[in-house]
This record gives sequence, structure tokens and C-alpha cells, in this order.
Amino acid sequence: MRIEIICTGDEVLTGKIVNTNFSYMAQKLEDFGLSVTWGTIVGDDREELLAAFRLSGERADAVIVNGGLGPTVDDLSQEIAARAAGVELVLNQDWLQRMEDFFRRRNRVMSENNKKQAMLPSIAEILDNPIGTACGFALDIGKARFFFTPGVPRELRRMLEEQIIPRLLARSGAPTAIHLKRFHSYGLGESHVDQLLAGVEELVPDGSVKLGFRTHYPQIETKLTVRGAEMADIERKLAPVQAEVRRRLGNFIIAEDDETLEGVVLAALAARQGSLAVVETFTGGQIAGRIAHLPGAEKVFRRGFVARDPAELAATLGLDGGLIAGEISREIAETVARAVRAETGASHALAVLVEVDDGPDRMDFGGSIHLAIAAEDGIESRRSRIYGGRDWVRLGAVELALDCLRRYLQNLPVTERTDFERV
Amino acid sequence: MRIEIICTGDEVLTGKIVNTNFSYMAQKLEDFGLSVTWGTIVGDDREELLAAFRLSGERADAVIVNGGLGPTVDDLSQEIAARAAGVELVLNQDWLQRMEDFFRRRNRVMSENNKKQAMLPSIAEILDNPIGTACGFALDIGKARFFFTPGVPRELRRMLEEQIIPRLLARSGAPTAIHLKRFHSYGLGESHVDQLLAGVEELVPDGSVKLGFRTHYPQIETKLTVRGAEMADIERKLAPVQAEVRRRLGNFIIAEDDETLEGVVLAALAARQGSLAVVETFTGGQIAGRIAHLPGAEKVFRRGFVARDPAELAATLGLDGGLIAGEISREIAETVARAVRAETGASHALAVLVEVDDGPDRMDFGGSIHLAIAAEDGIESRRSRIYGGRDWVRLGAVELALDCLRRYLQNLPVTERTDFERV
Repeated sequence: MRIEIICTGDEVLTGKIVNTNFSYMAQKLEDFGLSVTWGTIVGDDREELLAAFRLSGERADAVIVNGGLGPTVDDLSQEIAARAAGVELVLNQDWLQRMEDFFRRRNRVMSENNKKQAMLPSIAEILDNPIGTACGFALDIGKARFFFTPGVPRELRRMLEEQIIPRLLARSGAPTAIHLKRFHSYGLGESHVDQLLAGVEELVPDGSVKLGFRTHYPQIETKLTVRGAEMADIERKLAPVQAEVRRRLGNFIIAEDDETLEGVVLAALAARQGSLAVVETFTGGQIAGRIAHLPGAEKVFRRGFVARDPAELAATLGLDGGLIAGEISREIAETVARAVRAETGASHALAVLVEVDDGPDRMDFGGSIHLAIAAEDGIESRRSRIYGGRDWVRLGAVELALDCLRRYLQNLPVTERTDFERV
Repeated sequence: MRIEIICTGDEVLTGKIVNTNFSYMAQKLEDFGLSVTWGTIVGDDREELLAAFRLSGERADAVIVNGGLGPTVDDLSQEIAARAAGVELVLNQDWLQRMEDFFRRRNRVMSENNKKQAMLPSIAEILDNPIGTACGFALDIGKARFFFTPGVPRELRRMLEEQIIPRLLARSGAPTAIHLKRFHSYGLGESHVDQLLAGVEELVPDGSVKLGFRTHYPQIETKLTVRGAEMADIERKLAPVQAEVRRRLGNFIIAEDDETLEGVVLAALAARQGSLAVVETFTGGQIAGRIAHLPGAEKVFRRGFVARDPAELAATLGLDGGLIAGEISREIAETVARAVRAETGASHALAVLVEVDDGPDRMDFGGSIHLAIAAEDGIESRRSRIYGGRDWVRLGAVELALDCLRRYLQNLPVTERTDFERV
């Protein structure tokens, strides 16, 4: 089945907003085993929209159009859809009623121009939008089924998942029960993950499990898309594959599905009624900034200290400056972690001291990271070298620190080597 | 002149990467008074690429193609460009030499497949890429001039600005000297900025100044694009308009051109040999995280403290817990700012205490921000209410805090009301 996407709107065409709706839709369709073949971006212009609808209607089996369903004069999707399909626009009484209820429930008055949102091509099939006033709809133009969606991301997402993907799957003839299983890893490069997982899909010989990746440095997301007759079938197929992925990626899996690294750390601390204090230097508050604001962190995150200068660190922790003078080392990180744990009474203290190389902000320089975790049952520390510009080193240091804390809390080796560092 | 953009590559088409190259190109062309009329996204597929090149060649005057110039088998741009133009691919000795020099200077061996990057359509005009091995080029397909660019963003950016925009401006017949002046503001909504600046372009009656906006919540960028015969002409035209923008947006301008809010704050502190300490709660290290890592901050940023619980704040600052117990207030923020200044010896201390409303993470809840700035010459404080989800309140609090510090350092009123808060 050939699927195309048409994104409309001057804000997207002029680059004023980055087209995240396109990447979201393409990615989500891939997750369900559907592929986009062509993307088009056009502005709020009648002739360009008409040309785009007609071209896609000649080439594709299904077309998703995003944007242009709003109440203002530059929202043209219904009008041009009707023109391309050769039908009239008619007032849809059901949707008008829905909109009036929508405003009434929010104690707001519906303005006259909102009525435009209930003017739909006469042959349109309605696609429900339970959280907005833009009415989604479907109709045929040329040889393709067109699905019209709102530009507001959360309305689009819900409509795509609840209304459009089931219709596309039904049209493609594929089994409509689909499940997406996700693993988040840190410390392995994408090609390394790819290589480690080679052949894992073949544990289910009928081809109903598909493997994919997505990199958000420094994390990699591994995705298993599983198709089946129904959920029990999917779970039966998924079980051996997900067990194998867990076995092969092992300690490098930081979280699964909607979990995050910082959420896993927070939950592990909360589960043991623990608390956390963090000391950081070059990362400048960004380690604390990943965790301290999370819901639930108010009970766990005790204190964070930031300083660029070791003498300031010593002063803030009431340490003898001589103890942390000189070149940074694992021992100094340990001294600092012990001191901050004593000072704050936190069950766990994380100290992350980074020395950035002198020299230009270039890929062939880097930084040395010394980190230590102090807890009641002892102390662990490690040293790591990351090469890259200042921002790269900073991102890497934040992730490494949170991951070492996760490993400590999960009784995994804190010093296991990652692909991102050099000795 | 009708300009189209074609973005190529499976990673873009499948949504694996967000298409920031498209928005960058469209935005940059707008800055120079050029508009994109149509965007196309296709994968690494010979037939789709050929169809895309032919369609754009029929419709457009100029087409920018992005991606597909790399050394691997799925990089198809040169091959399909030659096919669409009906010419042969030939080895370009000059570019081969350039590549060999490129690798030699980096002490690396050029692999055999890199040679593919020097295979160009016989009629291609070379577009220089001084920072990479992908060779840009231009040729005619149909009635349009096609410009082929690398997918690597920094290589694309340089080629677009240095090679392609001058050629497009020459083709469009417009004056080729163009200057972009940018103002960054915080505290005014986009429609408010738009309204305040109404008519400002008309101070230069010949239409050579164009006004535009770009919102990155909570900041707004105001852009003046000025065309002229040469730079002196541009400066003469720009002078009255930029003076008027500065007058109308006044205290809300936080930075100009490549400056950032945090950079302006850091520079203002450095200029007076000042130093900074920061205390924060719900923002969790993110205020420190904006400034402490910047080049030069090692001399200015003294210490940062993060705690979610007032009792922890009191302990870390050696304060009597009774002093900061109870509901947060401006007075408490002032007490904390004074204490942290005394504790650290910093010339300036910023305390930002946020109380998030109890209740769900929804737009109709929000948070109260109490902040204070202590310095040798006194103390300033303010209270602010921001409505929105937790992330929105956090972003708003970070920006408000940095902006108040800027205002303090520039002797501007710290309590001036913004559009983002309610009393």
C-alpha cells in the first residue's frame, strides 16, 4: 500500500515551525509496519493545495493531510478537499452540535467563525476528535483514500492512533493487532546495538516481529513491532524475542517503554526510601536538572551543589581545601561524595567532577570525568574520557553519571566500558 | 521566482530524524526575501527520486535538493540528477584531488567508496564544500536550476549561505546585498510584539526592510531583513528602523543577533568583575544549568544550590529553619538570597523559590515564583504567577529569573509585568 503525507500551512512551509508532525506520523506508521513513500509540504494557498491533492490522489492508495482544519480564513483543507473530490461543502449538524457542547462545557461562547469547522465535503466520513473543535474526515480523491487531520499535535496524535491507523491496517489486509515494545539503552553505539541484535527477529519465523532503532544521543531506542491475531498471540510471539533482547543488551538497558533513565533512578531510590544529593562542576546543574523537578522527587532529591572551582566545592562542603586541590582524580571524587553524604544525610551521594581539555571547542579535544557514588554500604567510583566539543562532553557526562547511579542501585557493575569513551 | 526544496533520505522519510534541514533552509531563504513554494520528501529510491526531480523541474525556477551526496550505495543524488538531466556521470579530477588532500591533512586514508563522491553529472557546476567531502553542484533539469547540497547540517548551512543564496538572488534580479538584524525579547507575546511594531517597516518607504518573527517559548525573535545596493546603503536604511524597534520593545529586548540571555548576564557580571551564586527549588538546577557551563563562567559562576524542601535549603545555607518556614514569600526569597551571598561571598546572589499548585498537571493550574537578587548595593525581589503544566511553569520560571537578573544588572525595573503571568 502506497501512503503519502501532505503537510499544509505557511508556518511549516516557511520553516517558522519545525515539522515534527511529519516525523511523528511517519515514525508511528513505521511502528505499525506501514511505510510512507512520499511527503509533500505546501502553504495555505488554494492552487498549491489543489495541485498537491490531485498529484497524491493519482499516485497513492492512502494520503494523510495535516493542518488547515481551523476556524480562520487561511484554513482551507475542507474547501479544497471538496473541490478536488468534485463535491459540495455542507454544514454537518452533528459536528456543529458537538462544537457547541464543547464550548458550553468550558463556559465559553462559540464564535461565529468556528461554524466553518463544521462545513465538510458532502461525502466525508467523520474522524472523531474528542479533544478539539477541528473535525477530522476521510474521503476519496482520485484513486486514494484521504484522511484529513488537525495541526494541533495532541489532536493529531490521538486521531492518528485511534481513527486512522486502524483504517489503514484494515485496508492493507494486515493483522490489525499490533504491539510496540521499546528498550532504551545507553553506552552502546547504534551499529553495535544493531550487530548485537542481529537475527533476533528470526526467533519468530513467520516474520511478524520487526526490529528498528532510533538514536537520541547518547541514548538508543530499540523497537520491536509485533503483529498478531490478538493480544495473546502477540504476547506469545514477543516473549522469546524480548527475553533475547534483554539478554544481549544486558546491563546497557536503562529503561523500557515509557520509562526514562532519570525515572528509573528516582523509582529505585524511592523504593528503598532513599534520598539523593548531587555535586557537579562542568555539568553546571544539568544532572540535578534531569531529576529534581520530577513528580515524586520532592521526597527523594535532597540537595544539589554546583561549582566550577574546586576551592568553592571545598568551601560549600566544609572540606579542607587541600583535600581536593591538584588534578582531579577518582580519589577526590570519592572524598567529595563522602563529604556531601555526611553534610546532607542523604542515603546516596553522587559527585561528578569534569575537567575539560584546554584548547578549542573541537571534536579532537574532550574531557575527563571522575565520578563517585557514596552510600551506606560503601563507595564506587570511575574515570572516563569522552572526546568531542564542549556540549558533547557535557551531554555525555550527564548521561554517564545518571547511568552509573542506576547501575549502582541495581547492583550492576558501575565501571563497565561504554562505546562513547576512550581510555 | 518559484523555489522548491526536495529533502531526500530514508531517515527523513521514516521520521527517524526530524527534518530540521528543511525548516532551516526555508527560514534562511525567507531571511533573504526568497520564499519556498513547495517541499517534497522522498526516500533513497531511484524511481521516487527521478519522479520528484522531474515534477519539480516542470514546476519550479529553482530547486534545492538536500542529501544523497555521501559515499554509500544508498546515496543516489548524483546518479539520478544525471539521469533526469539526460547526461553521463564523469569523474571530476579536481574534486577527487580535493578529497585526497582533505584526508591527507587529517592523516586518514581515503576509502575506495569515497571516489563515488567525485562522480558528477557532466554538465555540473561545482558548489564548494570547504568542510566536507560531499561535493555540491548545480545543473538544469527541465526548466529549473537544481542545487544539490549535503545532508550534514553544518555543510549544508555553509553551502546555502555562501554558494546558493547569492546565485538565487542574482537569478531573482533583487539587490544582492542583504542584512539580517535580530532582536530577542522575553516577556511579550508574539501578537503583542507584532502590534507594538506595527508600521515600523514603513520608516523606509521603498519597501527594502521586511519584518518577521519567530517564537521559541518563552523568547521571541524579531527579524529585520534589509536589502540594499551595498552595506553602507543597508546601514543607512536599517538605522532608523532598529532605533525604533529598540524604543518600542524597550526593556523587553534581552539580546541582539547572536547574543543569548545567559550570555548577556554572564558578560554583564564579568564586566564588573562580579560573581554569581544561585539558589533554586522546583527549577532543579536548570537556572544554573543555563549559565554555569558557558565559556568564561568558570571565573563568574561561584556556586549553585538546589533543594526541593525549605528545611534542606535552611540547612545548606546555615539558616535558622524558622526563618524560611511557612508559605513562600518575597521576604523569604530575600532572606535566602542574602544568606547565600553571605555564605559564598559572590557579588550577586539569585534565589528562585517556586511553589507548584497542588493538583493535576494541567493548563489551568500553575505555580507561584518568588525571586530575589541580593548585591552589595541592596536587594530586589518580585512575585509572579504562571499558569500551565509543570514543564511550562518550570521553563517560565527559569527565563523570568535570568531576565530579572539581566534587568538588575542593566539598572532596569525588575518588577515590570510580562504577558506570561497573572496577578
